[in-house]
Amino acid sequence: MTIKVLGYAAKSSTTPLAPLQIERRVTRPDDVEIEILYCGVCHSDLHQARNDWGGSVYPVVPGHEIIGRVSNVGSAVSRFKIGDSVGVGCMVDSCRNCSACKQGLEQYCEQFPTYTYNGTDRHDGMPTYGGYSEKIIVSDAFVVKIPDGLDPKGAAPLLCAGITTWSPLAHWKIGKGNKVAVIGLGGLGHMAIKFAKALGAEVTLFTRTKGKEEDAKRLGADRVVFSTNIEQMSRVTGQFDLIIDTVPSIHDLNPYLPTLSLNGTIVLVGYLGGLEPVLNTVPLIMGRKSVAGSVIGGIAETQEMLDFCGKHGITSDVEVIPIQKINEAYERMLESDVKYRFVIDIASLKESRV
Amino acid sequence: MTIKVLGYAAKSSTTPLAPLQIERRVTRPDDVEIEILYCGVCHSDLHQARNDWGGSVYPVVPGHEIIGRVSNVGSAVSRFKIGDSVGVGCMVDSCRNCSACKQGLEQYCEQFPTYTYNGTDRHDGMPTYGGYSEKIIVSDAFVVKIPDGLDPKGAAPLLCAGITTWSPLAHWKIGKGNKVAVIGLGGLGHMAIKFAKALGAEVTLFTRTKGKEEDAKRLGADRVVFSTNIEQMSRVTGQFDLIIDTVPSIHDLNPYLPTLSLNGTIVLVGYLGGLEPVLNTVPLIMGRKSVAGSVIGGIAETQEMLDFCGKHGITSDVEVIPIQKINEAYERMLESDVKYRFVIDIASLKESRV
Repeated sequence: MTIKVLGYAAKSSTTPLAPLQIERRVTRPDDVEIEILYCGVCHSDLHQARNDWGGSVYPVVPGHEIIGRVSNVGSAVSRFKIGDSVGVGCMVDSCRNCSACKQGLEQYCEQFPTYTYNGTDRHDGMPTYGGYSEKIIVSDAFVVKIPDGLDPKGAAPLLCAGITTWSPLAHWKIGKGNKVAVIGLGGLGHMAIKFAKALGAEVTLFTRTKGKEEDAKRLGADRVVFSTNIEQMSRVTGQFDLIIDTVPSIHDLNPYLPTLSLNGTIVLVGYLGGLEPVLNTVPLIMGRKSVAGSVIGGIAETQEMLDFCGKHGITSDVEVIPIQKINEAYERMLESDVKYRFVIDIASLKESRV
Repeated sequence: MTIKVLGYAAKSSTTPLAPLQIERRVTRPDDVEIEILYCGVCHSDLHQARNDWGGSVYPVVPGHEIIGRVSNVGSAVSRFKIGDSVGVGCMVDSCRNCSACKQGLEQYCEQFPTYTYNGTDRHDGMPTYGGYSEKIIVSDAFVVKIPDGLDPKGAAPLLCAGITTWSPLAHWKIGKGNKVAVIGLGGLGHMAIKFAKALGAEVTLFTRTKGKEEDAKRLGADRVVFSTNIEQMSRVTGQFDLIIDTVPSIHDLNPYLPTLSLNGTIVLVGYLGGLEPVLNTVPLIMGRKSVAGSVIGGIAETQEMLDFCGKHGITSDVEVIPIQKINEAYERMLESDVKYRFVIDIASLKESRV
């Protein structure tokens, strides 16, 4: 038994996204049915729509920064009721049994989590479709509550860009007295700055691009350092307890290693691939420094982040678009022409109904 | 005012070590004068005698795994008295004022520690000479006590090979319930196995060399994995909380990354240089894993290690040589022909007196 839902899909790696009727399961006892209001646009959406990473199964309905309102709940659901403001991020399920899942680290599930789109449901084998659609049906364990008073448009990117930068800040216990640097000012970077500042850290932005100072400071950075300026770089030697590296493309990590403090960590959250040019181990050994990686965050941790955002009034800086502009938005994203995240107003989708 | 002491020195990068009269300072108020009994032979000794790393200032008197007996103390010394069994490791001083020093992490002193040899004393500017000599004079803050009952020959390598592998085990809080792997079975590796086992961890040795199983198990390894055997490697996927990588030459880290557990760390203690081939970030990101480095250990930590060794009867496996065999020992070390550390019986030095 399925229901028909209107979505926006890529039918192949070379076709632009367009309206498509998709089928979703009917609500199971532990499911929450969500009427989607807003969906953030992540770089992964573009890459998977275009099969840049391989493995895309078409049609692909992207979107994993989902904000909506509960429109129905299964019989076993007690944590949510119709009308609740909720969110869904990058995962809609996991094995729930492995050591990682039991620690609330579903993102590192040993059997791999079920991703919100381009995944396969663990029970009925149906493909998962993301938030570029009217509705989504998700097990209650993977639904989070959006705090009252948080703007839903600006809250959408918290579900991926937000948690991806929050999780390392939480894991490495950043707070007052710490110095944090962020490499790159995009969807992830601007959230990293906001969070690090709100957690009480002193925040530095590393950038290669002139003209970002004013914005960085408005977002909460105490300082901007041009990573290509050797003198500026040498002035921050030994400074940072944590560097969050949001750069999604190949880049040299070596200039940043000396800026880490004793026991400092540079954590990669944006780049999957080979670390070229080769890493020099000397600064690692001579300061007990680490190069680490981190991916999104767990469900409980996502709720903690949202509660923190509710308390501190933190949302993403967004540009709201109708879904009909999604292909244009992808092109602008490739040119970093967005401050700092596109969010689709899903109400626009009904205009595509034929 | 100086005293004359007989030592064994390299007079240039190309000359073998030979007897040499060296000058040492007279005991300052905070100094301990030590009659050296044994001195371990570290790979660094060879590299610095031959200027392999550059920066050697001749003559070089190597040796930083020093065990001896207190023969005199300065007027301000209260922790040591004549006759005490003591040790000196890789450092004889540091700035004592920086954040690292104040945390007892003198090895990471922001002004760099004064190394036991090929260094320069912070007060009189004299060159430092190591343990291949009859006596050494060291500030009491950099002298450690050797517990009663610990064989002094086997204790010598604890001062460098020991603390270098102990420090990461302590920093990453290894104990019962943890799984630890050690890459390489040499001076460092054999100590890492002994410590990890005594701390209660399950211990695996990674090696490329057949014929090490029996020895590894005798030292405390629960398992030996041939790192070139893909099937054996795949069987330890996701296993290790900490991998101590003792390999001193360039090698590929990528095969080891998947064997780390979620939140696991591979810590380099032996190799200074570029990590070739390039590191793949995917396993780091998909399991919040880290590549880290660590160098020797702090003075308080060295004392803790020695006390632990006293309690658990842990010493290094050594081959004792007279100092006249040091050049031959260097050649054998280059061929890994030692189980697992050469230790010089400094009593032999008097036979070189002319």
